[in-house]
Amino acid sequence: MNRVSPERSVLRVTVGATPERRRDTLAGEEPLELRVDGRSMAVTMRTPGADFDLAAGFLVSEGVIAHTRDLLTMRYCAGRDDDGVNQFNVLDLHLGPDVAPPGDDVARAFFTTSSCGLCGKASIDAVRTRSHFEVRDDPITVPASTLASLPDRLRAAQRVFDRTGGLHAAALFSAAGDLLVLREDVGRHNAVDKVVGWALREGRLPLRDTILLVSGRASFELVQKAVMAGVPMLCAVSAPSSLAVDLAEESGLTLVGFLRAPSMVVYAGAQRVAPDA
Amino acid sequence: MNRVSPERSVLRVTVGATPERRRDTLAGEEPLELRVDGRSMAVTMRTPGADFDLAAGFLVSEGVIAHTRDLLTMRYCAGRDDDGVNQFNVLDLHLGPDVAPPGDDVARAFFTTSSCGLCGKASIDAVRTRSHFEVRDDPITVPASTLASLPDRLRAAQRVFDRTGGLHAAALFSAAGDLLVLREDVGRHNAVDKVVGWALREGRLPLRDTILLVSGRASFELVQKAVMAGVPMLCAVSAPSSLAVDLAEESGLTLVGFLRAPSMVVYAGAQRVAPDA
Repeated sequence: MNRVSPERSVLRVTVGATPERRRDTLAGEEPLELRVDGRSMAVTMRTPGADFDLAAGFLVSEGVIAHTRDLLTMRYCAGRDDDGVNQFNVLDLHLGPDVAPPGDDVARAFFTTSSCGLCGKASIDAVRTRSHFEVRDDPITVPASTLASLPDRLRAAQRVFDRTGGLHAAALFSAAGDLLVLREDVGRHNAVDKVVGWALREGRLPLRDTILLVSGRASFELVQKAVMAGVPMLCAVSAPSSLAVDLAEESGLTLVGFLRAPSMVVYAGAQRVAPDA
Repeated sequence: MNRVSPERSVLRVTVGATPERRRDTLAGEEPLELRVDGRSMAVTMRTPGADFDLAAGFLVSEGVIAHTRDLLTMRYCAGRDDDGVNQFNVLDLHLGPDVAPPGDDVARAFFTTSSCGLCGKASIDAVRTRSHFEVRDDPITVPASTLASLPDRLRAAQRVFDRTGGLHAAALFSAAGDLLVLREDVGRHNAVDKVVGWALREGRLPLRDTILLVSGRASFELVQKAVMAGVPMLCAVSAPSSLAVDLAEESGLTLVGFLRAPSMVVYAGAQRVAPDA
């Protein structure tokens, strides 16, 4: 069975016409459990594929690791069913000796403080405190015409999306607009984690001088992931949220939304968007 | 300050034209911490507004509560900043005496099992075990023409979306297609939780004989929330995932995707979609 884009029998119904039974291709979704040094740390619903990238990127996004050497091994060694068949849905991760072990739930601990006064500012401070990299001084500048060309380049590279219409995409580009890597997932946050994890495993962190493009909206969480990976420019095809803009501003990240050629809206860090020659 | 749709200064850039500085309205996003009987249980990024609905719906979705009486009080009593100003981002919840207190992280515990073999089937079983309601026997049938009219009705009622382009919507309709409630949020899962929490607080659970419509895609998590609230029909404007379809099938829920008049795709429970008169 194809777990990335499985097929199902569906009924296509059109008002005033005869319903039509047919096969349809769906975006695959299955749970993935991440265990760190034997302890369950997170379960995420994801599209199978690039699981090692996803796991590595998740740990970078949460501030647990920042270097290739921090992640010693990743293995599907648990997760067999009653018949002994590995489901490939449980990953055992082992961290380097210098890495502080994460808490029971890193994703939640990230924003839960013992003090009162939880607010957007506290969430921004949490990211800035935990980040291993600084994006403010990254000197990348990109012509607006190059940025405007990126969504078409992403779509051209998106093979699965064409079949299911159900996958989010995240793509990393060089300052010249060349595609470095593309990852897809039912969850936009997972697609970004897969890109970041690819970069960690390739020894490319921090991701200086790069542009990260996501297929949908830009939430706080996506800006967080970009900052944690040292990405200086995040572009989204749709709208950003208020806290996404605030975090970008505070971190010195360039945030572009509604990127639809020939125009775009720059929400933060406009100095990196160059007028066209 | 308007926390639901705050304004920011942005730069609109069009290739070949002069950049234009202007004010833009964004989708508000702030953290909300839920504390149950004094213990921190979850932090979610959400659009402020309808927080009581969100908290109540979250607890229903996670199987912690199922009746109005299960939730005794909800108060913004923690969450003051250093100056004593309440940020309205921490909710203290108190459960009824008959309710089993949730674990430290209900959302994660839902899918983490001690056994090996985590897979889609295990996730489906977890939902079916925890659900207080049964949707399989709900006799609702809806003409395809009524279903096809729902997205326009949702959009007509979506006021904030028109301004920001950044909010997801979830709306509950009667079998006749009348709008019962609409909720918006930067997170699609939050919008659905707000609808479900509204229903709990109104004493309407289980939501028999209703249709839930979401503005984007249908993931496993959204089907889970529908099942946990006893909703028999879930419609999405875009694609469902494979596990969303499997859970709908196993639970007896009708799942409709790509609902765009005059057509739609029925992925599960097609007996509830009636041919037009």
